[in-house]
Amino acid sequence: MAIITLTTDFGEKDHFVGAIKGSIYSELEDVKIVDISHDISPFNVLEAAYIIQNAYSSFPKGSIHLIGIDSELNPENKHIAVKLNDHYFICANNGIMSMICNEITPEKIVEINIHDKIETNFPVLDVFVRVACHIARGGTLEVVGKVISEIKPIKHLNPFVNDDQSQIIGSVIYIDNYGNVVTNIRRKFFEQTQKGRSFEISARNYKFKEIYKKYSDIVNFDIPEEERQDEGRGLVVFSSSDYLEIAIYKSDRATVGSASSLMGLQMRDTVTVNFSN
Amino acid sequence: MAIITLTTDFGEKDHFVGAIKGSIYSELEDVKIVDISHDISPFNVLEAAYIIQNAYSSFPKGSIHLIGIDSELNPENKHIAVKLNDHYFICANNGIMSMICNEITPEKIVEINIHDKIETNFPVLDVFVRVACHIARGGTLEVVGKVISEIKPIKHLNPFVNDDQSQIIGSVIYIDNYGNVVTNIRRKFFEQTQKGRSFEISARNYKFKEIYKKYSDIVNFDIPEEERQDEGRGLVVFSSSDYLEIAIYKSDRATVGSASSLMGLQMRDTVTVNFSN
Amino acid sequence: MAIITLTTDFGEKDHFVGAIKGSIYSELEDVKIVDISHDISPFNVLEAAYIIQNAYSSFPKGSIHLIGIDSELNPENKHIAVKLNDHYFICANNGIMSMICNEITPEKIVEINIHDKIETNFPVLDVFVRVACHIARGGTLEVVGKVISEIKPIKHLNPFVNDDQSQIIGSVIYIDNYGNVVTNIRRKFFEQTQKGRSFEISARNYKFKEIYKKYSDIVNFDIPEEERQDEGRGLVVFSSSDYLEIAIYKSDRATVGSASSLMGLQMRDTVTVNFSN
Repeated sequence: MAIITLTTDFGEKDHFVGAIKGSIYSELEDVKIVDISHDISPFNVLEAAYIIQNAYSSFPKGSIHLIGIDSELNPENKHIAVKLNDHYFICANNGIMSMICNEITPEKIVEINIHDKIETNFPVLDVFVRVACHIARGGTLEVVGKVISEIKPIKHLNPFVNDDQSQIIGSVIYIDNYGNVVTNIRRKFFEQTQKGRSFEISARNYKFKEIYKKYSDIVNFDIPEEERQDEGRGLVVFSSSDYLEIAIYKSDRATVGSASSLMGLQMRDTVTVNFSN
Repeated sequence: MAIITLTTDFGEKDHFVGAIKGSIYSELEDVKIVDISHDISPFNVLEAAYIIQNAYSSFPKGSIHLIGIDSELNPENKHIAVKLNDHYFICANNGIMSMICNEITPEKIVEINIHDKIETNFPVLDVFVRVACHIARGGTLEVVGKVISEIKPIKHLNPFVNDDQSQIIGSVIYIDNYGNVVTNIRRKFFEQTQKGRSFEISARNYKFKEIYKKYSDIVNFDIPEEERQDEGRGLVVFSSSDYLEIAIYKSDRATVGSASSLMGLQMRDTVTVNFSN
Repeated sequence: MAIITLTTDFGEKDHFVGAIKGSIYSELEDVKIVDISHDISPFNVLEAAYIIQNAYSSFPKGSIHLIGIDSELNPENKHIAVKLNDHYFICANNGIMSMICNEITPEKIVEINIHDKIETNFPVLDVFVRVACHIARGGTLEVVGKVISEIKPIKHLNPFVNDDQSQIIGSVIYIDNYGNVVTNIRRKFFEQTQKGRSFEISARNYKFKEIYKKYSDIVNFDIPEEERQDEGRGLVVFSSSDYLEIAIYKSDRATVGSASSLMGLQMRDTVTVNFSN
């Protein structure tokens, strides 16, 4: 049975997501529709790129990922379908795919050209759903678009390293549900640059000299529980997706605060790593 | 396989929606349950009417739509099941159905009367789910209720036109995830009243003399991208559901603001269209 | 077909829930995945315990409930799988199960011990999903863990009664989507202690001498609708889950306010019942 996932900035309240699901079920009876996220910040291509990258590969090969962010067709925003790593992606060519394509070369990219048959101002419903159902029925990308070779890039995708390899300059690319701050510095890149040297991570005025394996490694379990003061302490980990992440132990944005709120870290802010020789 | 959709004001956090889904699966193994929205503002019948109207018709014929808004049974709030356009709706008779019924005459309306067997203060779980499963198994409406001829109306459903047809007085009926402001002035009604005349749309102090086909039609793509200042500009479009909508180009309520916040437009506020002869 | 439900504090925006669903579908093609809630307050075990207790029993026997709250493995936070009332639960041993186990004795509890094969800092994805799929395929709990006899308890689980049975001292254990305030005083416990006596319920400065059967019982339907002033009035009911609940008639946290906001009632606050002899 085909799987179609949905990632949009439509929110959970409006009728848009319901209309899309109804439309898919009207075309295909045997299909699983899975929500990845509908709460992407409006028009935030960087957030969408991060979320789809970290969710898609858990799904079975052959899954179809429909991404509805900033998808209005105009001269600078074309629609594409991409085959990569045996998964299919349907979205606007606005940078969303550049994070995934940065790691794995697409097998095929087409610019969708079925619009001459469809006049619409809700392209996710009228165009993306049709393409998804076409693929779900076993159709090929060439039938719905013409092959192109490149996708549009995105800013803040990769961190920089200075010439003498003593510093990584990264950026905040995502702030998660716990207010934890995810950077674009990936574990493999970090370790290849580090080459075993000691380091200091800086974000605004905050400095960290250790990266924990998991959040609760900050806790000393030999101290009696009632004497511990770990909740609310800052720390650095590699996230489950292997991104360098600045976190607060047991953070809650509504009560104790979070890494984002307590340290004043926002999307696209700079995080640096200095290595000592 | 039967499709049952859910539209409620229960929110995403509480156990209510989970309990309803569990209860449906306990009665029917082969059923697709699809969330339309659980984030309707509490007891907001107008919002619910708008959302179900714009979502339901994408679903296949025979779908069953369960709507849990202000559904406590009392002398002034009875439960109904409606067959219309080959879809089924189960809800309280509190105006939710009047927006859909304004356009399409129901084939059948019954007032549900199985309550003598059910004592409950969670009628969506205990009554609506039973009725939905009864319909899903092929049961008729007459078995669960007595036929009635009229449903309760709702306010702000239709805009007014003045006697000499020079003015439409509409209302805001929905504010969407982008903060865009949806009015009750539909494209067909607008064009029939307009009869080709030029017009001015007024909402508070804001005036618009043009309706765009889509949001990005406000952009002049001949100007270099870095010189454009379109984000945050106000515009008017007909929405994908053909309602006159006041929008902000690439709005985000959390950052640049939205039509609702920037123009101070709220639910039920007045929006007028003046035609010039 | 197996049913796996999900209850987490992952939120609706991040990729975590999508990744879990993809992972389950990669292991099992024929499975229904049902969201109970992903909006538990971060690390809030009490909220999670309340929600899973009130949702699980609606599901068919044999359902598997995966609960991802505060689930990082550490010396004080082990992973367990529980069979109870013909349902399966997979979670950390942090008190989440104590509310359910307070009412029904578990048939079997195992401490999961498959971690030596799995190094992870996303245990819900890497451990809980594997255990859930193992159970869904008909596997037994003994294969994934060693039998233990007790689970960790939780605070604020039960109300207190004073020695002469004249007073119940309860706590707020949940605040729902309408801002209604749910206490840990259950109907059966209330009635057994009350023994028909009259009573006064106190929460901060607010006093109530009546418990309504349903919310709209506060309304006098003999008064013309336009003269009524019931919206915004406080009242006490037993909730659909039979917990004593302090509510506001037709509350909306965003507009008229709620029991929680208007009366200043928060999680773990005290609610007392005094009986008069």
